[in-house]
Amino acid sequence: MTEEGRYAFSGLDRVIHERARLGIMTSLMAEPKGILFPELKDLCQLTDGNLNRHLQVLEESRLIRLDKSGSGRTKQTRVHLTSQGQQQFLAYLDHLKAVVDDASNAVRQARKVKRHGLLPG
Amino acid sequence: MTEEGRYAFSGLDRVIHERARLGIMTSLMAEPKGILFPELKDLCQLTDGNLNRHLQVLEESRLIRLDKSGSGRTKQTRVHLTSQGQQQFLAYLDHLKAVVDDASNAVRQARKVKRHGLLPG
Repeated sequence: MTEEGRYAFSGLDRVIHERARLGIMTSLMAEPKGILFPELKDLCQLTDGNLNRHLQVLEESRLIRLDKSGSGRTKQTRVHLTSQGQQQFLAYLDHLKAVVDDASNAVRQARKVKRHGLLPG
Repeated sequence: MTEEGRYAFSGLDRVIHERARLGIMTSLMAEPKGILFPELKDLCQLTDGNLNRHLQVLEESRLIRLDKSGSGRTKQTRVHLTSQGQQQFLAYLDHLKAVVDDASNAVRQARKVKRHGLLPG
């Protein structure tokens, strides 16, 4: 009766799926020239500590690159997606669209059952 | 230049967003009469321990209900979405669709920049 692994969603890369990192990756995808650390913090509404922690995870997975320049008061960090990051984001997005379709079908099925008073097999 | 919180995705309920729980919630949404524990395990490809742990989180958030019946060898647990669970799942799905739109727009923007060799602002 059950279709093994039907809802395992194993294609959803956990590194990208985490909510804050999904925001970071989406921001960076939209800006091929990269985003400065303080702007990224604002866009994603994260604290310095949280943003740093998530950037570290993304960098370890080779999805982003950090370009540090200047020193002292002129020091700044610009964050870029790597080409691997772009590719993995596109693959993730395809899986996410499939999840939305699955979930929308589940909702339709539930509504049909409610309307007809039928409970499937 | 940045639009504060543009990519915070704060509407994405973290309890539902976690990959395994998203699979569990989608499975249950599709089956208004509930799903037996071993079937749910197969559908989501989870171990007993993992499924138990995620069901506990969902139950504590009042998104699911566990109906236990029988005893000894006839003991079984059927898992249902609560009506709160259904509502929160629908709200989550709306937010997820918005995220997919945001991410798709980000991809389009990146492709436009690549094609025209323009770097915005």
